Amino acid sequence: MNTFGQRFRFTTFGESHGKALGCIVDGVPAGIKIDEEFIQEQMNRRKPGQNKYATARKEDDKVEILSGVFEGLSTGTPISMVIFNENQKSKDYSNIKDIFRPGHADFTYFHKYGLRDYRGGGRSSARETAARVAAGAIAKLMLEELNIEVQSGICEIDGIKCENYDFSQVSNSEIYTLDLQKEEIQKQAIFDAKKSHNSVGGVALINVKNTPIGLGEPLYHKLDAQIANAMMSINAVKAVEIGDGIEASKVKGYDNNDQINSDSFKTNHSGGILGGISNGDDINVKVYFKATPSIFLIQDSVNIHNEEVQCQLKGRHDPCVAVRGSVVAEAMMSLVLADMLLLNMSSKMENIKKVYSK
Amino acid sequence: MNTFGQRFRFTTFGESHGKALGCIVDGVPAGIKIDEEFIQEQMNRRKPGQNKYATARKEDDKVEILSGVFEGLSTGTPISMVIFNENQKSKDYSNIKDIFRPGHADFTYFHKYGLRDYRGGGRSSARETAARVAAGAIAKLMLEELNIEVQSGICEIDGIKCENYDFSQVSNSEIYTLDLQKEEIQKQAIFDAKKSHNSVGGVALINVKNTPIGLGEPLYHKLDAQIANAMMSINAVKAVEIGDGIEASKVKGYDNNDQINSDSFKTNHSGGILGGISNGDDINVKVYFKATPSIFLIQDSVNIHNEEVQCQLKGRHDPCVAVRGSVVAEAMMSLVLADMLLLNMSSKMENIKKVYSK
Amino acid sequence: MNTFGQRFRFTTFGESHGKALGCIVDGVPAGIKIDEEFIQEQMNRRKPGQNKYATARKEDDKVEILSGVFEGLSTGTPISMVIFNENQKSKDYSNIKDIFRPGHADFTYFHKYGLRDYRGGGRSSARETAARVAAGAIAKLMLEELNIEVQSGICEIDGIKCENYDFSQVSNSEIYTLDLQKEEIQKQAIFDAKKSHNSVGGVALINVKNTPIGLGEPLYHKLDAQIANAMMSINAVKAVEIGDGIEASKVKGYDNNDQINSDSFKTNHSGGILGGISNGDDINVKVYFKATPSIFLIQDSVNIHNEEVQCQLKGRHDPCVAVRGSVVAEAMMSLVLADMLLLNMSSKMENIKKVYSK
Amino acid sequence: MNTFGQRFRFTTFGESHGKALGCIVDGVPAGIKIDEEFIQEQMNRRKPGQNKYATARKEDDKVEILSGVFEGLSTGTPISMVIFNENQKSKDYSNIKDIFRPGHADFTYFHKYGLRDYRGGGRSSARETAARVAAGAIAKLMLEELNIEVQSGICEIDGIKCENYDFSQVSNSEIYTLDLQKEEIQKQAIFDAKKSHNSVGGVALINVKNTPIGLGEPLYHKLDAQIANAMMSINAVKAVEIGDGIEASKVKGYDNNDQINSDSFKTNHSGGILGGISNGDDINVKVYFKATPSIFLIQDSVNIHNEEVQCQLKGRHDPCVAVRGSVVAEAMMSLVLADMLLLNMSSKMENIKKVYSK
Repeated sequence: MNTFGQRFRFTTFGESHGKALGCIVDGVPAGIKIDEEFIQEQMNRRKPGQNKYATARKEDDKVEILSGVFEGLSTGTPISMVIFNENQKSKDYSNIKDIFRPGHADFTYFHKYGLRDYRGGGRSSARETAARVAAGAIAKLMLEELNIEVQSGICEIDGIKCENYDFSQVSNSEIYTLDLQKEEIQKQAIFDAKKSHNSVGGVALINVKNTPIGLGEPLYHKLDAQIANAMMSINAVKAVEIGDGIEASKVKGYDNNDQINSDSFKTNHSGGILGGISNGDDINVKVYFKATPSIFLIQDSVNIHNEEVQCQLKGRHDPCVAVRGSVVAEAMMSLVLADMLLLNMSSKMENIKKVYSK
Repeated sequence: MNTFGQRFRFTTFGESHGKALGCIVDGVPAGIKIDEEFIQEQMNRRKPGQNKYATARKEDDKVEILSGVFEGLSTGTPISMVIFNENQKSKDYSNIKDIFRPGHADFTYFHKYGLRDYRGGGRSSARETAARVAAGAIAKLMLEELNIEVQSGICEIDGIKCENYDFSQVSNSEIYTLDLQKEEIQKQAIFDAKKSHNSVGGVALINVKNTPIGLGEPLYHKLDAQIANAMMSINAVKAVEIGDGIEASKVKGYDNNDQINSDSFKTNHSGGILGGISNGDDINVKVYFKATPSIFLIQDSVNIHNEEVQCQLKGRHDPCVAVRGSVVAEAMMSLVLADMLLLNMSSKMENIKKVYSK
Repeated sequence: MNTFGQRFRFTTFGESHGKALGCIVDGVPAGIKIDEEFIQEQMNRRKPGQNKYATARKEDDKVEILSGVFEGLSTGTPISMVIFNENQKSKDYSNIKDIFRPGHADFTYFHKYGLRDYRGGGRSSARETAARVAAGAIAKLMLEELNIEVQSGICEIDGIKCENYDFSQVSNSEIYTLDLQKEEIQKQAIFDAKKSHNSVGGVALINVKNTPIGLGEPLYHKLDAQIANAMMSINAVKAVEIGDGIEASKVKGYDNNDQINSDSFKTNHSGGILGGISNGDDINVKVYFKATPSIFLIQDSVNIHNEEVQCQLKGRHDPCVAVRGSVVAEAMMSLVLADMLLLNMSSKMENIKKVYSK
Repeated sequence: MNTFGQRFRFTTFGESHGKALGCIVDGVPAGIKIDEEFIQEQMNRRKPGQNKYATARKEDDKVEILSGVFEGLSTGTPISMVIFNENQKSKDYSNIKDIFRPGHADFTYFHKYGLRDYRGGGRSSARETAARVAAGAIAKLMLEELNIEVQSGICEIDGIKCENYDFSQVSNSEIYTLDLQKEEIQKQAIFDAKKSHNSVGGVALINVKNTPIGLGEPLYHKLDAQIANAMMSINAVKAVEIGDGIEASKVKGYDNNDQINSDSFKTNHSGGILGGISNGDDINVKVYFKATPSIFLIQDSVNIHNEEVQCQLKGRHDPCVAVRGSVVAEAMMSLVLADMLLLNMSSKMENIKKVYSK
């Protein structure tokens, strides 16, 4: 079950400390310009080791395309991309080889599969999300040809909320914050946590502009449901809101309904999705990341023999996974939309005749 | 895309005001006792017209099994269930035949499919969820054979939160509240909204006990991701939290990590899921329903010719969809778990040998 | 696994002697004229009890549409169809309640599911194919809007081959033969087998005209592979040939290759499919049905306690299932093509722009 | 659609003359010994350039495992395997860069995708089947743990049929023939075709021993239907027979039915499959390969501008693709069975309890 999507779909492989990780992106329409520099730029936005607010582990995350592209264009055949691992320090994990790290998937993987790849979380490591960003870059290249824009930023760190959202400034911020006024105190919160061997959580906001009306396949492949699926599949995510989200459960119907003018909706409480289908308005989604479970404080745990032990991690970890996580969420949103665009093509006979008329 | 699930899967059909609605449940293992009374009881928990806190529309929601059961046992073949519609008043909709109701899917369905079934929302109506509850009842019968218990209740109405959660009292409450101390003011909020032709939102809590460790298929069919998918697919749901959810993004890593003893986790902030896999602890999920979009106040809208009009609904609607929605959420949770139980069987070779050894 | 297809997909339910059987057809584009008379006509071509070359069991096979159609048009939502069983004589089976019929699926179903629905084969009965024909009729209505024509006929009975293929005469023949010159001896073969309590096999030829170039999704959803899948899923089918089929393995490459002119292929050995993709030429497929396993001669068998017994069937059975089977094969071909048409829409970016350009 | 299988599934990538090809095998149960030498041996059986009856093109087909294996065992996570291309001579194709080769997929790929990867057939090349053999080797390792044996051989070349089938001798034959008595004339037929710049077809027989009863998921994932799907997806295959296949359509029911004793079926006309489910007897399948379309005789064709031209191929091609194709068919059979084994685990509640009982 390492495949996501129906028509525009990708399959990832690879463990934190294996030889390589990567993906196969399948169902990519032929004739899309595959800009390798753009793909690498997306990778660089996510890659670790860029500043003191992220893990000190350095990975180049250089993507190599193995198939599916010929003379700069997608050919309609599967695009395989591989990223060779370089900077693995498996020995960081030797002291916890048999110990389950609290807040981690060690415990559940061991019981599910009956064995343990202790090297940095193996498959459950967030390192896998590099492959998602590579796949997402292909999706973004397709969305661009249809003028659909997906963007992301951080709207909250350690409970400190942004007050204004300015996506155009995100790339100028080391923590991808949407509000440069809050950047300093948000950075300080990350830094303080790091200093005290602890970690903080955060929230990413994903925004999509210019979505066509009609994306989303009722009833069990709705746009919002698939977004929730995609976001919750990202490491450390514990909640997802569409549009006003939780707030929509606290106000009256009259105040939450988006009334309609002849040229647009008057408000956008819905987050651009009605009945699981895009309504043409901006899509807004908030993604909540828990504080990084990898901390350097002593914690109680058990080992694989169920003996009680104390667990103390070494190594290098993000003090706030939400920051780089926002790039992954943006990639997942792009992948969901690319899939939905293809799925929606057959919603009405009129479209089918457009494609097959000679 | 009207199918949910991989191995234990169901497909629903039917519109609000069509002849019938129903489902086919496929992948049900052979040999489960199919208790038709139990199925009907589940239907009755969701059915409309039971008290003044729900719509006055009455439907018997009598389920008829057409296939897949022989001599009281599931046969392994598809179980088809049908519910004939009885109490449709299509004329309630005649005055808004061409008008898009704010907060509804009318607008998006019309643009996606190029035509309109104006009768009570057609396929987008929450009436469809009756079929989910029927399918969910089959799932619950299977879970019961494994001693897995799924329960639900309302933990918030119109912003009024329950302080204590007591699932054993839910069936005694007309609004399925988890806190009988709060029942009166929550009821009053619903009643006030109804009187003022408005509506309120609410929150359902779903709890699962006795889940085996290991459910959830990384990386793109994780348990939490599929729960999010399932819940967000329910009408009016705008947010989903797993475990502590949003709170997990506001506290430090040390406070959010669930440390481990030899006999259990010391806390359950995670909501019973780590790395997308059940850890054996209680699963807890919160599902946020927006206030019912069907209100009786005048709202601005457009018609199918994009002319600006005023929209005033008639008919009978729930002033708070969360109440009956909680039963649907419980059904969806049961369906996700049933599927995950089957999927997880092949996680290790040891299990396969258990099944095929002679 | 009772669903077939990816985008245009159907799910069937129902057993031979249950209350009803039927299907849900999902992914049907909105705006197709749903001609109920046409659907019933297709059912009538398959229904039993029409003449002495088929089973004497009579079923009206009246289809009722429960959803997905509004004001005569498909709405894009699932089309559910049901056929209530009328003429079941379960008592015909009382003498073989515990006995496995040679050539039948009784034995394998019992061992797979651990229980037995002995009434006429239960789910494994060819009665289920009625639901396929109903679903296939919806597919045919869609194909018609694109001028694609699917037809079928019998090209061999009991080893007696047709020499000329004339599809226009098939509906005039009680045994759907393609060669009226051979009709009498083919009928005689069926009749002789029936008289001697035995049965015969036969071969159906399916032909498709006016297929667009490009249908089929490499590499694991090729057109020919899905046709083979669809045909082999029909009761009693034991072999499938595409184009020249087996003959293509006996001639030299030069003689089998279809050379190309500027206006067409010079020959059609390939059966209209190259590399798993339609080439625009006629699709030709041969489907081989074994002789009906239900015969009235005494056969050795065992019962569910694995005791050796003699098995003698009663009841009413087709002496040659290929005849009515050809109608099912035609339906399955239509369903495969409808699915492939939707899947192929996203093969190139150019098509996507056609659909989403404003 | 480059993925095959439901639970044990693989996705392939790569073009004939691209950088690399490979696959991701997903759903592999944890704890299987992954013997890399065995995998390479399977690759060597298929690889080109081994003798004069195959293409002179040499490829080492060295498989590298990138993920999913730790300390010699499958971990339950996706197994990615890559084969770097070495011996591509794209210039062989420069003279037919714009010309469609008769009998090839050039024509259909070009029209489907709107562009052309002219280098040796690109994705449509049989070179892709190397990835299937690698995936199939993983499947075989799993089957071995359950004592299921899959074997293959050539039973006919250029119309010359084997009379006796001896699988134990296949590895001693350069053309994998099942009848060493016929080897010389079959080799001569291949050699003669090669000398005259032509090619021949052939037939592979696949046999499976020790299959558990119960594999195959009615009604649309039957074992025989998925075998047909798998086999027909192999390059150059034009027909598939299960058991007696076509012969079953020519004999009477009494002669085709396999009567049953208390210890076994008395005959095996069915090829080990009844109602789409394995009956425990040997599975036998015949796969018909057309003569290689790549021949060196002059043929009429058109170019991408639809101008009539003469096509003369250069390069190195198999004079009989059936020989190496038999290894691919064996791999595909293994993959189908591995998937079916996992799918069948949930057929009855009893199995589920076996896995989840503590």
